[in-house]
Amino acid sequence: MRRRKRLLGAWLIGACWMILGISWQPAGAATAPGSEATEQCLACHADATPGIVADWEKSRHSRITPLDARQIKGLSLKVSSDSIPAKLAPTTVGCAECHLANPDKHPDSYEHNGYQVHTVVTPVDCAVCHVQETDQYKHNIMSHAYGNLMNNPVYRDLMKSVNGDQQMVRGHLEASQATDRTRADSCLSCHGTKVEMTGLVTRDTDFGEMAFPQLTGWPSNGVGRINPDGSQGSCASCHTRHQFSIEVARKPETCGQCHSGPDVPAYKIYKASKHGNLYSSLNGDWNFRTVPWVLGKDFSAPTCAACHVSLVTDAQGSVITRRTHQMTDRLPWRIFGLIYAHPQPKEPDTSGLKNAAGLSLPTDFNGAPALAGLIDQDEQNRRRDVLQNVCLGCHSKNWVDGHWRRFEHTIATADGMTLTATRIMQQIWTRGLAQGLPQHSPFDEAVEKTWVEQWLFFGNSVRYSSAMLGSDYGVFENGRWYQSKNLRELKSWLDFRRQHK
Amino acid sequence: MRRRKRLLGAWLIGACWMILGISWQPAGAATAPGSEATEQCLACHADATPGIVADWEKSRHSRITPLDARQIKGLSLKVSSDSIPAKLAPTTVGCAECHLANPDKHPDSYEHNGYQVHTVVTPVDCAVCHVQETDQYKHNIMSHAYGNLMNNPVYRDLMKSVNGDQQMVRGHLEASQATDRTRADSCLSCHGTKVEMTGLVTRDTDFGEMAFPQLTGWPSNGVGRINPDGSQGSCASCHTRHQFSIEVARKPETCGQCHSGPDVPAYKIYKASKHGNLYSSLNGDWNFRTVPWVLGKDFSAPTCAACHVSLVTDAQGSVITRRTHQMTDRLPWRIFGLIYAHPQPKEPDTSGLKNAAGLSLPTDFNGAPALAGLIDQDEQNRRRDVLQNVCLGCHSKNWVDGHWRRFEHTIATADGMTLTATRIMQQIWTRGLAQGLPQHSPFDEAVEKTWVEQWLFFGNSVRYSSAMLGSDYGVFENGRWYQSKNLRELKSWLDFRRQHK
Amino acid sequence: MRRRKRLLGAWLIGACWMILGISWQPAGAATAPGSEATEQCLACHADATPGIVADWEKSRHSRITPLDARQIKGLSLKVSSDSIPAKLAPTTVGCAECHLANPDKHPDSYEHNGYQVHTVVTPVDCAVCHVQETDQYKHNIMSHAYGNLMNNPVYRDLMKSVNGDQQMVRGHLEASQATDRTRADSCLSCHGTKVEMTGLVTRDTDFGEMAFPQLTGWPSNGVGRINPDGSQGSCASCHTRHQFSIEVARKPETCGQCHSGPDVPAYKIYKASKHGNLYSSLNGDWNFRTVPWVLGKDFSAPTCAACHVSLVTDAQGSVITRRTHQMTDRLPWRIFGLIYAHPQPKEPDTSGLKNAAGLSLPTDFNGAPALAGLIDQDEQNRRRDVLQNVCLGCHSKNWVDGHWRRFEHTIATADGMTLTATRIMQQIWTRGLAQGLPQHSPFDEAVEKTWVEQWLFFGNSVRYSSAMLGSDYGVFENGRWYQSKNLRELKSWLDFRRQHK
Repeated sequence: MRRRKRLLGAWLIGACWMILGISWQPAGAATAPGSEATEQCLACHADATPGIVADWEKSRHSRITPLDARQIKGLSLKVSSDSIPAKLAPTTVGCAECHLANPDKHPDSYEHNGYQVHTVVTPVDCAVCHVQETDQYKHNIMSHAYGNLMNNPVYRDLMKSVNGDQQMVRGHLEASQATDRTRADSCLSCHGTKVEMTGLVTRDTDFGEMAFPQLTGWPSNGVGRINPDGSQGSCASCHTRHQFSIEVARKPETCGQCHSGPDVPAYKIYKASKHGNLYSSLNGDWNFRTVPWVLGKDFSAPTCAACHVSLVTDAQGSVITRRTHQMTDRLPWRIFGLIYAHPQPKEPDTSGLKNAAGLSLPTDFNGAPALAGLIDQDEQNRRRDVLQNVCLGCHSKNWVDGHWRRFEHTIATADGMTLTATRIMQQIWTRGLAQGLPQHSPFDEAVEKTWVEQWLFFGNSVRYSSAMLGSDYGVFENGRWYQSKNLRELKSWLDFRRQHK
Repeated sequence: MRRRKRLLGAWLIGACWMILGISWQPAGAATAPGSEATEQCLACHADATPGIVADWEKSRHSRITPLDARQIKGLSLKVSSDSIPAKLAPTTVGCAECHLANPDKHPDSYEHNGYQVHTVVTPVDCAVCHVQETDQYKHNIMSHAYGNLMNNPVYRDLMKSVNGDQQMVRGHLEASQATDRTRADSCLSCHGTKVEMTGLVTRDTDFGEMAFPQLTGWPSNGVGRINPDGSQGSCASCHTRHQFSIEVARKPETCGQCHSGPDVPAYKIYKASKHGNLYSSLNGDWNFRTVPWVLGKDFSAPTCAACHVSLVTDAQGSVITRRTHQMTDRLPWRIFGLIYAHPQPKEPDTSGLKNAAGLSLPTDFNGAPALAGLIDQDEQNRRRDVLQNVCLGCHSKNWVDGHWRRFEHTIATADGMTLTATRIMQQIWTRGLAQGLPQHSPFDEAVEKTWVEQWLFFGNSVRYSSAMLGSDYGVFENGRWYQSKNLRELKSWLDFRRQHK
Repeated sequence: MRRRKRLLGAWLIGACWMILGISWQPAGAATAPGSEATEQCLACHADATPGIVADWEKSRHSRITPLDARQIKGLSLKVSSDSIPAKLAPTTVGCAECHLANPDKHPDSYEHNGYQVHTVVTPVDCAVCHVQETDQYKHNIMSHAYGNLMNNPVYRDLMKSVNGDQQMVRGHLEASQATDRTRADSCLSCHGTKVEMTGLVTRDTDFGEMAFPQLTGWPSNGVGRINPDGSQGSCASCHTRHQFSIEVARKPETCGQCHSGPDVPAYKIYKASKHGNLYSSLNGDWNFRTVPWVLGKDFSAPTCAACHVSLVTDAQGSVITRRTHQMTDRLPWRIFGLIYAHPQPKEPDTSGLKNAAGLSLPTDFNGAPALAGLIDQDEQNRRRDVLQNVCLGCHSKNWVDGHWRRFEHTIATADGMTLTATRIMQQIWTRGLAQGLPQHSPFDEAVEKTWVEQWLFFGNSVRYSSAMLGSDYGVFENGRWYQSKNLRELKSWLDFRRQHK
């Protein structure tokens, strides 16, 4: 109750400040002024959600105006939009500049203390200043992560077999599709949920009764979040609110949130690699905030961002690689085996890929790629060269070529181990020891799950390990040991079950 | 030999210093004086155990007297005891102040250079200055970790099946209860051992022959250590000797020592979460030593301590949550499924809980909670509100409510997957394909261990992941993938064994 | 093309600098001069491989001459060679000093801009200044990691079953030995490859056509790399190029690159231990660059290096333990069970060990050690005392003895669990349910792989956990839970297969 009165007081004082034209100033902050609307937000929210406000105070957004930021010359420029709306240019980027932006585009906006506020800030809002990055991100497969999963019947079937409720019904295990809440708590926590406003709810707050939006799929920071305004993605997935720090986005732990499990062990393998070792050992002395990011000076070994996203130059300012938010720009191969490695899809929306058997997969069960939807060799070579340019900043051509030859050899052998497993699995299906396509799910029985792990866990581990020199991830840590063990178990299962039908 | 002479010299010099009244001063330390007794300890131990002394020199204990510490006003006060014994007040807190404290209470004390010293410093000693924290800790389930395991016949049976020696005897695998040493090296390394003094042993040292206590269960820093004085716990589990730093206790790696395995993957899930990502990315700029701990200013994302232990305020000094060393204070649910999630036990001593079947478990095999021993809905609501108050420091009510709804939904679905597994297991027992209760252990056969993993590993992973948004720990990293795979394997096992008895 | 012209210009300017006698100076570097040859390298490579040059600029090598380094007195001396060649002494240690060293010894050297350069810098080159360390390393089992694996028929058989390609041939799974590329990408990524020069290749570069060596097994930083000059090992495995920082070598992540998987989980267990907790929590305040390394002052808890490699003293300069690059110097036991724990081998080349059955293993299948090749009890005691001297820097004799008793007890019980598994496996072989020695591989069938995990994964995890107090790694994290589960699965498999041949 005491807190409530204090908060109410804060709101009143905030209102007075505004009337008197007194500016609220972030602690230890710059001289750049905040907007009146933001000051009004802060007057209450410094008390209501002090963590957010304090975090924002540490951000560059709280210290510089778009006008000043836009005038930075050369490679250090971060504001890529050609023109900034006059209204925004002269004040720092505070609550209001994002949560009140593009009011006509946000079906989830609602009246809040005289302002039309939206909770879900989207790439459309960020694009006001950072249009190049948001445009690139539209072509990033990550921005399509929701539909690529939810609109693909093969993956929906796999999902059902993974996160659906299972119950014994008349002696059989029966699975139902997972609920929205379960999905949001599992697959969609990375892929992103679909956020829609369904209405308003009135709540008693420390400031009296107020109305707030009811949102489906909220909260969500998934990379492919479907926003109420129809846009896809959440910049805050990597540039985490409310510091939006480039430092966070450049650190591998950010990528590691979603690229860490046995299906996609990129982060763990990076950490086990020499690059990860150097990062762990030396990053306290590195500078993660400079733009451009200077190889050797700012950092001594790449993080995920250095190879896949960032603008990297040498100490003389020569560009080693340009910034991209379409990460596949530098990727010739998709080593996340589905169910085999394959050239990157041409389009970020992969739900339309069809393999020879008509399934929504980039390869068929015997490894043949669905070529029509995948980039060709020329494009693979171009992307390889862009990626290797980063390697060549520290390594000789000899080194890089030797590494790459091994990597592509491992793509082939890991796929070979999946093919052998699939041939055994096909015998299991053919002999009726398990029920597969077209009538039944190929993912739901125990022995089928053994087969899935061959490519989804072990093949992926071997390939990612090869890409980054992850040592034991290529052998005993979900690697070749398990590929070979899994094969033998599938074969032993088949042989024994054939004898004992 | 040379070292021995030098050490003997050190002892003599120490004695002279004392006689002459010359104070030993920690390097770079404050002006606050150490006690004579501590100076005598240091004179030898700076040579005998230099690492301990150097570590203590870095501690706040070596720099401030209880008298000064007690006079700190407001929320920054750390010395919670109302009065400090006059003898202790004017000198810093050194070796003697703890290892000579409460001499009449320590059956393990022994004569050492004219002092009655005890090796095992206990919460009784810490309580001299920090009585509030030690009192809270008595109500913490962690302080009962020894008895909760060792006095529970169900868990003893589980332990035997895990860490007991197993040998082939006349064609059968037979397990014996683990030895004390094995227990101390496995379960009790976290839970704590029982430390008792059994006698003295004389050893030839660098200072000549000296007597030392013989202690069972030593060394041990387990959180529920049974001390020779009868008290429970070791403050040094988290406030690690001899810096006793609040920084260490606030860092998640400290909790991670015991909350990291597949049975209780809290630390790993935290690290994979957005909160953990921010901690990993930004903690170099945070301040882990301030009391109170200021949200947003001192830290930008919670560690384990922020949500479960620490006194947290906003920048204006408003209390967001009060300090507690009874961590369950902020926990409505116990998501460490035994074998299902359930409301927290009322009492920290859980060995008396009985389920409907008379087993010492908080739920029965079909999920019904042993209500008499568990907190009720009102208490759950109260604790939820306390916990959510921390969330609300940075997140809107919308966000927190949405998260909580998902979390409680996941508690239900994860329990559902355990129930389905248990129903299959019950069929396996009923049909005599495995030997369960009441005659036999339900934990020792291969197929029973498959079932145990359903709740102890996979159910726990799914629930902890939901609590902290741990992404793949809810799916492929010991999560729903394994829940569903495990179910199918149990069912496949049952079906095949029924056909081939 | 523009870059190419700029690089060519850099080369010309470099040549001019040399002629004019103008020194190239690393940014922010010391006044010590670089050699003319190094300046010529840098003139181009600052552009061609800017990351390497920038990294080297941060090294001590770029700041001090061997002459000055050699004159450092006492324990801080790092240059252990008695005399430094006159030619090297007065300039800093740059590109040329290593890549042009010992030109007559390097079969892989090639003409490059007027210099005879070799790509693969070896311990022979490092020995010019650091002869004591390279001599010690020759006795380190790690320097023999290539041959210890590749020349041991038992391990070659295990390797084939792990990383060989497997295909279905006439209804059978058939494995072939892995290719060189696969080996380099798996086992040999840690063990080291064999690097040989097979010829020269001409490449079009930014500086025109140039010849470069073709090297087999390149790249490689494995600890037992067979170099073109016949030497073994790569100092850069741990002292990573081109900072060669003692900081990196002292941080546990460096060891963790190869000692992290389920076969040898040392790093993960360290991180989960109290020592690792303190490292993770406090290392930002430690000093990893001082020589000697002062216990308590420079660091508050050991890293891998502190216990196994580094020169550690107390604050008074008394030596607690001397530096060694023969890490087994401080190891009485080899707890990496093959297939049981055993006293350390006498010689670093273990390929000649023979057990009672004539197999190249340090123990036989029932646990009896191949005594002739292993150190005796006296040597074990000596090494234990050396190791424990590190422990005693911070812990009492009571503590250390108690810990050690548990550790040796766990060695015995973990071996006991392997023995029981092996007895079951021997029944499986005897009954013809699997095909073992002497005709067939004991490692390639599914059930055999289950048995291998008993010692290679679970036994190792239990032992390493006991050595470092790794909590759950001794129980649920690949520890006793899996030992006991694995036993029950083997037994259940045997019983069921016996009934259903």
